[in-house]
Amino acid sequence: MKKPLILVVNDDGIFAPGIRALVEVVQTLGDVIIVAPDSPQSAKGHALTIHDPIRINRDKKIFHGVEAYECSGTPVDCVKLAKHVVLKERHIDLCVSGINHGSNASINIIYSGTLSAAMEASIEGIPSIGFSLSDFSFDADFEPCKPYIREICEFVLNNPMKSKLLNVNFPKLPAEKLKGFKVCRQAEARWIEEFQENKDPIGRPYYWLTGKFVNLDEGSTDTDIWAMENGYVAVVPSFHDLTNYAGIKELQDLNFG
Amino acid sequence: MKKPLILVVNDDGIFAPGIRALVEVVQTLGDVIIVAPDSPQSAKGHALTIHDPIRINRDKKIFHGVEAYECSGTPVDCVKLAKHVVLKERHIDLCVSGINHGSNASINIIYSGTLSAAMEASIEGIPSIGFSLSDFSFDADFEPCKPYIREICEFVLNNPMKSKLLNVNFPKLPAEKLKGFKVCRQAEARWIEEFQENKDPIGRPYYWLTGKFVNLDEGSTDTDIWAMENGYVAVVPSFHDLTNYAGIKELQDLNFG
Repeated sequence: MKKPLILVVNDDGIFAPGIRALVEVVQTLGDVIIVAPDSPQSAKGHALTIHDPIRINRDKKIFHGVEAYECSGTPVDCVKLAKHVVLKERHIDLCVSGINHGSNASINIIYSGTLSAAMEASIEGIPSIGFSLSDFSFDADFEPCKPYIREICEFVLNNPMKSKLLNVNFPKLPAEKLKGFKVCRQAEARWIEEFQENKDPIGRPYYWLTGKFVNLDEGSTDTDIWAMENGYVAVVPSFHDLTNYAGIKELQDLNFG
Repeated sequence: MKKPLILVVNDDGIFAPGIRALVEVVQTLGDVIIVAPDSPQSAKGHALTIHDPIRINRDKKIFHGVEAYECSGTPVDCVKLAKHVVLKERHIDLCVSGINHGSNASINIIYSGTLSAAMEASIEGIPSIGFSLSDFSFDADFEPCKPYIREICEFVLNNPMKSKLLNVNFPKLPAEKLKGFKVCRQAEARWIEEFQENKDPIGRPYYWLTGKFVNLDEGSTDTDIWAMENGYVAVVPSFHDLTNYAGIKELQDLNFG
C-alpha cells in the first residue's frame, strides 16, 4: 500500500523543538515533507505575504533523512508554497501543524499561526490537525504528547471525515497524569490586554503587548479550557465557522477517543 | 445628548483614500478617533505584534480637526492600542474599519486585516462594521458608498444588537446602479493559488503569490457574492464563528435595510 504523504508545518520556526517532536511521530506513519518558517511567526493569524516575494530553501541539516524546506513567509504562506511549489499539487493525505510552544485553546485559535496554517490546509480539503502544548518554554517536554499524536493521526488517516480540521491542545502534565482525549467546543474567552509602556535609548515611547486570559465560560464542562484543566487532551473540530458542531457529532458517532 | 465615540481603523494604512472617505461620513455622526497602520497591512489577518515593541504617533496633518494616530503594528494591534492606550478604556460606541480597497466578501474575511480589526473590536463587545469596496485601485470611487455607510452606522448606533460585527461589501457600481442592502451569509469559496516564480538580480529564485477566486456556492442566492453580483450592498453578520445565523434573523426582525 502507498504510504500517506504528510505535510508538517508550524509557526515557531523550523528550529523549534516542537516541530522536531512532531516529525519524530509522523515520520513513522508516512512520507513526510516539512515546510516551516525560517523565523518565529507566533500570533501571525491568517496573515499572507502578498506585497513581497517569498523565498524557500531546502534544508538538509535540520532533519536527517526528511525533506525539509525553510520559508521566509508566514505559516499560511508555508502551506500554500508546500502545496503549489514544493509538492506541485501532489495529493496531501494529512497536514499537521505544531507542536506549538503554548496553548491555542479557545479564542487563541484566531491569533495562532499554528492553527491558521492547519486551517489553510483544511480550506484546501486536506485533513489537518493543529497541536499545541500549554507550555511556552523552549525546553517544554513534548514526550507525553507523542502517543496521543500518533493515535489521532492514525485515526484521521483511517477515517475520512467531513470535518477537516482538529485543534488539539495538551495540558502541561506528565504522561501518567493525562486522562485521554476529550472532544469539546471552543471556550468563549478573551484576553484582557495591557500595554507595557517604556522609552527607547533616545527617549521615544514604545508599547509592548501583555495581558491575561479570561475564561468567560467558567462552569461549563464541555469546553477545551475545562478539558485541559481536568487533565484531558482537548480536541475541538474547527472550521472557518470556528466551532463545527456537526464535527463534534461526527467524531462521537465514529467513537473517536 | 452625548455624542457617540467612534473609532476608525483600516488595513491599507493611514494615507489610503478609503479611510479618508470613511472618516468623512462618520465625523458627522460622533466624535472620531483614528488609529491606523503607518504602512499598508493588507492580508495580515488576525496577526498581532507580540515579539516587538509597537510605536504610535499623533498625526496632525492628515485629517484636519480629527484626532488621528499612526501605529507601527497590524490592524488588530491598532484596535488594542486604541482601546487601552489612546482612549484609556473610554467607552467606544462604534468601531468602523475600511473602506478597504478591494472586496472582503466570502472566505476573504479570514485573510483580511480590515475585517480582523473590526472582529477584534467586536470581541471586546464594541459594535463594529468592516467596509470594503470591490475595487483594488488607489483611485477607487468611494462616493457611492457614503450614503449606505451613513445609514448602517446610524442603524447600528440606534439599535443595540447581540450581533457585534457586520461585514459590509460594496460592488463596484455607480450610485444609481446600487439596489440597496442585502443581509446574507458568507459564500463558500476559495482561492486557487499559483505562485509566480522569478529570479532576483543575483539569480536566486523567489515566489510571489497570485491566484484566482472560485465561488463554490454558485447558484445560491443567499450569499454575499450573489448579492454583490446582483447590485446589492452585501451585509454579513459575522462572529468568531464566522457566519452568525442568529444575527441574520435579528437584523431581519429589526427590519434592517
